[in-house]
Amino acid sequence: MNLDCTGVLVSEVGPRDGLQSVAATMRTADKCAWIDALAAAGLREIEVGSFVPPSLLPQMADTAEVVAHALSLPGLHVAALVPNLRGAQGAFTAGVHKITVPFSVSEAHSLANVRKTHTQMLDELTSIVELRNDRYPDIAIEAGLSTAFGCTLQGVVPEDDVLRVALAARECGVDEVGLSDTAGYGNPAQVKRLFTRLQQELGAAAGGAHFHNTRGQGLANVVAALEAGVKTFDASQGGIGGCPYAPGATGNIVTEDLVFLLEAMGLRTGVDIERLVVARERLAAGLPGEPLYGYLNAAGLPKGFSYATKPG
Amino acid sequence: MNLDCTGVLVSEVGPRDGLQSVAATMRTADKCAWIDALAAAGLREIEVGSFVPPSLLPQMADTAEVVAHALSLPGLHVAALVPNLRGAQGAFTAGVHKITVPFSVSEAHSLANVRKTHTQMLDELTSIVELRNDRYPDIAIEAGLSTAFGCTLQGVVPEDDVLRVALAARECGVDEVGLSDTAGYGNPAQVKRLFTRLQQELGAAAGGAHFHNTRGQGLANVVAALEAGVKTFDASQGGIGGCPYAPGATGNIVTEDLVFLLEAMGLRTGVDIERLVVARERLAAGLPGEPLYGYLNAAGLPKGFSYATKPG
Repeated sequence: MNLDCTGVLVSEVGPRDGLQSVAATMRTADKCAWIDALAAAGLREIEVGSFVPPSLLPQMADTAEVVAHALSLPGLHVAALVPNLRGAQGAFTAGVHKITVPFSVSEAHSLANVRKTHTQMLDELTSIVELRNDRYPDIAIEAGLSTAFGCTLQGVVPEDDVLRVALAARECGVDEVGLSDTAGYGNPAQVKRLFTRLQQELGAAAGGAHFHNTRGQGLANVVAALEAGVKTFDASQGGIGGCPYAPGATGNIVTEDLVFLLEAMGLRTGVDIERLVVARERLAAGLPGEPLYGYLNAAGLPKGFSYATKPG
Repeated sequence: MNLDCTGVLVSEVGPRDGLQSVAATMRTADKCAWIDALAAAGLREIEVGSFVPPSLLPQMADTAEVVAHALSLPGLHVAALVPNLRGAQGAFTAGVHKITVPFSVSEAHSLANVRKTHTQMLDELTSIVELRNDRYPDIAIEAGLSTAFGCTLQGVVPEDDVLRVALAARECGVDEVGLSDTAGYGNPAQVKRLFTRLQQELGAAAGGAHFHNTRGQGLANVVAALEAGVKTFDASQGGIGGCPYAPGATGNIVTEDLVFLLEAMGLRTGVDIERLVVARERLAAGLPGEPLYGYLNAAGLPKGFSYATKPG
């Protein structure tokens, strides 16, 4: 995604990270209506599902159908998560614009999450890139480094390990490498250090930030990432989401609160906060009884609030 | 309060800002037990109440008694809020170490909150400083500039107005001028600009930050304030608190989450997070049924977490 110099891309991951971590399965029609409302609010990239076996995550069984619908929305960048070559084949066939392949820096988490060692993951990533290069050259591939800021199984994850895995993934031929705080362990000092190093090592292939709000630090970490020059942030409407294999790791940062943060700071997102509240109603209607999070929704915009405007 | 170069002072304001904004009145013995537990957790400064007419805020009627108890705790810096000369007289007589006088940058908020114009507030502040200078030279006085980041009545508060009021308050002879985001309107860019200017204009008399989490931006604003060199942060255990005269302005930043943020970043607070959870139980016991906020309390410390340690 190209952005002007004052823009930030908010990548909505609720339909994937959010929906795969709740017990209920949202109906396909409700997913599509929610995605329509998210796109109408101005979100330009949405991760609409994951290509995983339905036996593991029945909530994601209709992802190809949801992708087909999302592709009909003009201008929307349609992304999906895939854990392996088989998933990538499904995503490529469905016609997504981008896939994200999660890659755990903690090998213990990798084994628990996708039953693969680092070596096996690098082989998988290489196969995915080869398939893309051969037959789907226009589709972007991001490696999303999970547990980059700490792991519920391993504990502390050394920063050198993160950089080592990032470089190895980049050498497999992925276009971007992003960092995920899967367990909500990250702090702003660490975030600033790691993204600064990632950019030094990978240059334009340094990807975005995927933060969870497990310990309330999500937006604080966004501020630190902005200081380090990060331009893409994953977020989930209503803060739903988490990792079913990392106990306690619930809750992405809340899209509504993130958009308010960025726009109030003068960083253009292209997202209309009032319309985001409309989309939130779609989400609530499609997932009855599921708790939604966030503050802006309840408090409303400040009196006299103005969106970031185009410079010049 | 003197701190070493890597230290940050967390000033607990729950017993004042928190308790004055809830409907229930906590019993004096419960307040004292809570303050004991907060001090035992390592908090070095606690704002224990406000000296206001009991007819206006019955929750604060026992403040002199609570101050007397807090003064018995070794090493604790005991603070109180006072809106006027009469309240200052009460606080000085009670023997507090520090008073904070709120001063609204928004004149509309000042009139609604303490029924005084800016000119009247400056006169009041001058009288308070004169009384202190004459009879209580060891007691510190801070002016806390409310609505410094925006106001529910006035809307946008120009940054030049904040600096003008800060200088005027300083010229009355107060020791410090802090900035309060009364309505939870602030954003990190604004926070960094305003505290940077405050320090340029006031030097060592630039005070701390008092943020509310109304729109979920509290800890994000802390990160920006740290970048600007702020060393003192108000917070409220369980996030209770707000301004009864500013609709929607509920919820201080949560002490537990703030301490985690700072310690994880390597900034020493002297506060033990596990003991803070014990103090939270005291708070919950003294205010049955009152909702408490925060994330760290539920999620627990990360596996492998270590506190900031003394350098060298």
